[in-house]
Amino acid sequence: MRATIDILRAAKAAAPVLAGCTAEQKNSALAAMANRLRTQTDAILAANEADVAASRERLGNVMIDRLTLTAERIEGMAKGIEDVIALPDPTGKVLATVNRPNGLVIEKTAVPMGVIGIIYESRPNVTSDAAVLALKSGNAVVLRGGKESYRSNAAIVDALHMGLADASLPTDLVGLVEDTTRASATELMEAEGLIDLLIPRGGAGLIRACLENAKVPCIQTGTGICHIYVDESADQEMALNVIENAKTSRPSVCNAEEVLLVHKAIAKAFLPKLKARLSKVELRLDPQAAAIIDGTPAGENDFDTEFLDYILAVAIVDDTEAAIRHIAAHSTGHSESILTRSEESAKRFTRLVDSAAVYVNASTRFTDGGEFGLGCEMGISTQKLHARGPLGLQELTTYKYIVRGNGQIR
Amino acid sequence: MRATIDILRAAKAAAPVLAGCTAEQKNSALAAMANRLRTQTDAILAANEADVAASRERLGNVMIDRLTLTAERIEGMAKGIEDVIALPDPTGKVLATVNRPNGLVIEKTAVPMGVIGIIYESRPNVTSDAAVLALKSGNAVVLRGGKESYRSNAAIVDALHMGLADASLPTDLVGLVEDTTRASATELMEAEGLIDLLIPRGGAGLIRACLENAKVPCIQTGTGICHIYVDESADQEMALNVIENAKTSRPSVCNAEEVLLVHKAIAKAFLPKLKARLSKVELRLDPQAAAIIDGTPAGENDFDTEFLDYILAVAIVDDTEAAIRHIAAHSTGHSESILTRSEESAKRFTRLVDSAAVYVNASTRFTDGGEFGLGCEMGISTQKLHARGPLGLQELTTYKYIVRGNGQIR
Repeated sequence: MRATIDILRAAKAAAPVLAGCTAEQKNSALAAMANRLRTQTDAILAANEADVAASRERLGNVMIDRLTLTAERIEGMAKGIEDVIALPDPTGKVLATVNRPNGLVIEKTAVPMGVIGIIYESRPNVTSDAAVLALKSGNAVVLRGGKESYRSNAAIVDALHMGLADASLPTDLVGLVEDTTRASATELMEAEGLIDLLIPRGGAGLIRACLENAKVPCIQTGTGICHIYVDESADQEMALNVIENAKTSRPSVCNAEEVLLVHKAIAKAFLPKLKARLSKVELRLDPQAAAIIDGTPAGENDFDTEFLDYILAVAIVDDTEAAIRHIAAHSTGHSESILTRSEESAKRFTRLVDSAAVYVNASTRFTDGGEFGLGCEMGISTQKLHARGPLGLQELTTYKYIVRGNGQIR
Repeated sequence: MRATIDILRAAKAAAPVLAGCTAEQKNSALAAMANRLRTQTDAILAANEADVAASRERLGNVMIDRLTLTAERIEGMAKGIEDVIALPDPTGKVLATVNRPNGLVIEKTAVPMGVIGIIYESRPNVTSDAAVLALKSGNAVVLRGGKESYRSNAAIVDALHMGLADASLPTDLVGLVEDTTRASATELMEAEGLIDLLIPRGGAGLIRACLENAKVPCIQTGTGICHIYVDESADQEMALNVIENAKTSRPSVCNAEEVLLVHKAIAKAFLPKLKARLSKVELRLDPQAAAIIDGTPAGENDFDTEFLDYILAVAIVDDTEAAIRHIAAHSTGHSESILTRSEESAKRFTRLVDSAAVYVNASTRFTDGGEFGLGCEMGISTQKLHARGPLGLQELTTYKYIVRGNGQIR
């Protein structure tokens, strides 16, 4: 087994080669990688079958589905690479130019981070998706996937390596960590000087471990306790549509609604309609809501839980201010929405709710790189430093100041 | 003594009030603060005298000078506030607008971070400078200064509080940590949910402690092992001027040069001229340089030390590539400069040197918020996440996506 530190060092050493490539060179390498994913389909499927067979008894159906690859899913990965090829190169762009009175010309220039580390869980298609976004933005990447998908990940990385070799680029630009124990995740978190940005993609436990242990810069992603607040003046029919969409269109994702807040003045009229509309959703009700409709009494943690399931916590609030206070106390800073016809309430809500995405009269489900027009995403940041919300290609870069003079001294 | 956690909670609670202020409201509060600094001059000087008296025996002259306030220095602080008033408000600006085909309008909008924590050392004027930059960018601030300047800091914060009260803003917007033991610094580093950005301003030990302990987002600042590389084709007279400036104009600051790399082809001609020009600088020479001029043989750590003194480590390198490799191995990522007449060497150097500021034919001393045209700075970031180089007002903000719709679902 190759030591994780060696994989990191090799990625670090290879990174400048990619940073020196033109957009065209990067894109032809990506095209070669898409091609190799297609020609390696059988090998990838065979590896995936072995992964699935080994996990069949331990994992539930949902997890097995996430783990399983098909020819269509592999074609989807290749197609995903072609979508990324079509996106503009985020590096080399001059973000600002300052011409100083002393003759210095200062160009703030977008540049790659260097090495991006990614820790992720069972879905093997992340291997290709994440690697390709990192490479397009000029970064080497070190991938640390889950144990149960290791064979699949290794087969996918083999195909990506073939593509890199086809384009005469070092295969060390894409490193796959071979140790899939917790030790290697910790090693990435502590790899000072070798990882410029670490992105944990996974559950709250992984994010927490990064927060506790990381000595390298991290971006926290993906935990979403998203709120929708139905204001007194809301169009109630629209509200039912938006809530149904936010809660039930895909409950397992981070931009799904977990908590509903309803203005007390409309609760009696609105909640029975809600109950009828969300017939397949378990409603966990605060005492005021429970006085109006039937449902499960909300427990102590129900307003602080990312259910990722057909469960919705419901509370009655006095007004927009109270909704904003509730959100400040319970939100993870991902996405919140107000449904209202009051311009004044919308303004207060968007100004005072401190989350990555704040909506007026729309579903929280739109917080997504594609839906925001970024073309792709590496995850949804719930922190405020560096990048907030969907992480597109631009968010995987940093900048440097290039300053040209003719002997200026200070 | 007020508990640090209470100061943090009060700042967090007060922050939304400031975030809701207009630029005019913030500026009139700042003007009141400048006014109060002036009227409180005697009280601040008296407190400072007590600090200086208490430290006179323990601290050297340089530290006593950093600690000492005068009427002129207090006027400088007030004037500094007026300079900040004149700068544009960084918040509320729409950084990008996306009109989606489904009718959603997405505005990426600059917003304050929330609460900024600052840990700093002996200079009491940082108390005012840092607080004012944080406030102008819409943030509450919690200041944790050094023990030896506590009385001065408290007197300055009193004046700032009077200014806030004059403007009917909560004084909790500027918190001064009363506990000056190491425990309070650690408390700030671990204040999850209460500090949105922590800026350690101080020596390598403080930065290291943040890296090891911080659970809140941090920006590392200020450690600069800055290199100048004199290429084969350099204008040697210009090189002498630039090096003299970078090394000796202010050796104690982070953008001063610490290491000189000289192309081997010109070393014999250039080094004797260098030695004559830098007569008051101790040269620590690698073996090749020591074969040409007299000086101290460089020790094991001399190429990895921020001397902050009249000391310069000197090495001979084979070519631009070797200079770039040396810098990659030893730089702190602050500022590096190439002196050359070759466009090709300049291009390679600016592309491959991975530092916040990369210069061609200019002194590293220009890495500074004022010199970069930002009007001010909170420090120089040597990390790649969020902000690199001088931290101006814009770097003290984050953004959120405000999304307006009319019932869109996905």
